[in-house]
Amino acid sequence: MSYVILDRDTLPEYISKLVRPMEVLGTGDELDITEIGDGNLNFVFRVSRPGQPGRSIIVKQAVPYLRMAGESWPLNKNRMITEIRALQTYNEIVPDFVPDIYHVDENMCVIMMEDLGAAKVLRYSMMEGEVFPGVGEEIGKFLAESLFRTSYVGMQSVERRELMQKFVLNDDLCKLTEEFIFTFPFVNHESNYQNSPVNKYALEVLSGDSEYLRRVLRFKELFLSKSDALIHGDLHTGSLMAGLDGTYVIDSEFAFFGPFGFDVGKIIANFLMSYTSHFHRNGGEEYQNWLLGECAAIWNTFERDFLRLWESAPNSALIFDGMLRPEDLAKYKQNFMTHIFQDAVGFCACSLARRTVGIAGVADIRDIEDIDVRTRLEKTNIDLSHFLMMNYENIPDIASFIAEVKSFYAQLTIRS
Amino acid sequence: MSYVILDRDTLPEYISKLVRPMEVLGTGDELDITEIGDGNLNFVFRVSRPGQPGRSIIVKQAVPYLRMAGESWPLNKNRMITEIRALQTYNEIVPDFVPDIYHVDENMCVIMMEDLGAAKVLRYSMMEGEVFPGVGEEIGKFLAESLFRTSYVGMQSVERRELMQKFVLNDDLCKLTEEFIFTFPFVNHESNYQNSPVNKYALEVLSGDSEYLRRVLRFKELFLSKSDALIHGDLHTGSLMAGLDGTYVIDSEFAFFGPFGFDVGKIIANFLMSYTSHFHRNGGEEYQNWLLGECAAIWNTFERDFLRLWESAPNSALIFDGMLRPEDLAKYKQNFMTHIFQDAVGFCACSLARRTVGIAGVADIRDIEDIDVRTRLEKTNIDLSHFLMMNYENIPDIASFIAEVKSFYAQLTIRS
Repeated sequence: MSYVILDRDTLPEYISKLVRPMEVLGTGDELDITEIGDGNLNFVFRVSRPGQPGRSIIVKQAVPYLRMAGESWPLNKNRMITEIRALQTYNEIVPDFVPDIYHVDENMCVIMMEDLGAAKVLRYSMMEGEVFPGVGEEIGKFLAESLFRTSYVGMQSVERRELMQKFVLNDDLCKLTEEFIFTFPFVNHESNYQNSPVNKYALEVLSGDSEYLRRVLRFKELFLSKSDALIHGDLHTGSLMAGLDGTYVIDSEFAFFGPFGFDVGKIIANFLMSYTSHFHRNGGEEYQNWLLGECAAIWNTFERDFLRLWESAPNSALIFDGMLRPEDLAKYKQNFMTHIFQDAVGFCACSLARRTVGIAGVADIRDIEDIDVRTRLEKTNIDLSHFLMMNYENIPDIASFIAEVKSFYAQLTIRS
Repeated sequence: MSYVILDRDTLPEYISKLVRPMEVLGTGDELDITEIGDGNLNFVFRVSRPGQPGRSIIVKQAVPYLRMAGESWPLNKNRMITEIRALQTYNEIVPDFVPDIYHVDENMCVIMMEDLGAAKVLRYSMMEGEVFPGVGEEIGKFLAESLFRTSYVGMQSVERRELMQKFVLNDDLCKLTEEFIFTFPFVNHESNYQNSPVNKYALEVLSGDSEYLRRVLRFKELFLSKSDALIHGDLHTGSLMAGLDGTYVIDSEFAFFGPFGFDVGKIIANFLMSYTSHFHRNGGEEYQNWLLGECAAIWNTFERDFLRLWESAPNSALIFDGMLRPEDLAKYKQNFMTHIFQDAVGFCACSLARRTVGIAGVADIRDIEDIDVRTRLEKTNIDLSHFLMMNYENIPDIASFIAEVKSFYAQLTIRS
């Protein structure tokens, strides 16, 4: 059918004609429909059969504009085609980490998928100080599997370029990231956060430092041009759901072939912003230590599993088995991981700035009503962004990173 | 029509139905058809009307295998679709450097284009010691225009990704380059040149040095993953034709979005291999000096024109006008050009090895019958490849490069 925006009134009839969703929903009372999700980009509904637990699905539809900015900011439909393809790819290579797909319709920009039920969006639970044992390890596993298996060390050349063809169309959302992460936070742009003095502070601390800006441009160039692997492209704590049976990754509409370090850096930045927020929230030092431990677990698991996968794939687009002696190959791989790590630190620095002064900041901090407290925490994120960007070349591994971040926070006097 | 391989017998009827080619060919005596070209990949014919100068066209058809290796090495048709799209793109952005297009047929993998007439393939003329005044400057202009205008500094984000979509399908030929330039020359592979002791020498000098190999892998990784701009992908002296009215670039079937330095490094490598060959050929020191001067002209013109184009495009996918102060932007641009230059030196080193020990070496040297002379020159190329790869980080600009190359050759005792 041709494109129309679905709503609570029209959804039941649309769904009623679809085999797999109707199997899941079964029969009975009239469907219950609730809008969920943060609404930055899309409409997301939970559709469920009242009184029949488990009989529910998630319906996601893209609208042809940036929802948080309004109809004056058009976006094409490529993002939903991309989300469909990314979810299909993830269902092949990391099925444990993504919801099942029940129905897709590229014309309608609709995807219907498994309702993750009791699983919680990580961000909001982390704001409450909830501990999720093993979540860092889960994230590290997802990163290792998804990045390795779509990269030139995990794939053969032709198969990889065939996969790349499916994602090169994601033009509008790549442009959003280029501008919102790598440009607007560092200039005086109308889209930046206007309700805090942090805006002016960032212009001084970040934009006033030409070496910092030059480094941001280095990472923007990497984002624009380095096609290492299929990256999720928006892996923050709002794109992760934690359930009893593990961690799920959702919202893959930003996916494309990008640099290895991007997803890693972005998710770590979100854990650090949670850390900052708990100077005010109730988690305290204990929760902050848990957060840093999970950052370490993300990287350590990622690195361990990436190298383990590499061990089992001696021939790839990049590596011809036997070209390097085993000891040289081991050294090469270690350098390879160090480069990914340092790039991740740089991307982490960009994300810290973007989610503090840019449009759509993290709720962890934006939701704090006391402007003085909020501003102090925001300035901390800006300082941390500056510190990490100016030092990433001297932070060779996760142990140094954790130590540096700890000592950065320790010299602050913001603990209330 | 469905795919059939055209030959001298079937071409006249095929052409007779095509409007534009027939306009060029006019009427008169039976068409004269000659096979031209090196035949590594495709069939190339010159079709002309006898006795009517100017009434001729070039017909190029791809066959579904690697012609120089035989039907046992299949290649899909994407390369001819790519050549068509690259030639169309070049006709838009650098029309002075490419032949006009008369007819294309993607199913038949056929392209018909302007006959460049008296223009000479640069390689064969250079083997004879012929001087082409200004050819380096022409090549530099082509490189600056074609690379800048398809890059993230010369284009806006969405337009650039739309262009990228047209070239991401060139899987088979990218794989050829990955293997033939970055892998096989550095391992004991059956496709390598078997008629010279250089094969064994390269295994010692290049493959025996793990740091050299690690650097080759760095450049292979760049080739696999860095999508800076639309590169020609096979810019050697056999892909250039020099005529009275300028220089033409042909054979763009290897085109894709790759690293900035690749085309630059490959063409300079071919000038250097000509330099080496003239220790034996008749050009002598004077011709060798001319060749080095043209290498300098290629880079200097490229850099000057690239920066001039950049000056006129303050906003691009990468750069937001005003984000950097003018003096910082100037410094950023200079670093940017230095990185392209050093990458070009690395790619040059790979090309020197590939065209010496790999399949399809340069005729400049392979055509020398005396095996002792030939081997001496081949070993010189291998030594030069090793020298450049191990030192590219210490060669910051073209002046140092020319000085280093001169002193490399000067300490040899191969001048006969």
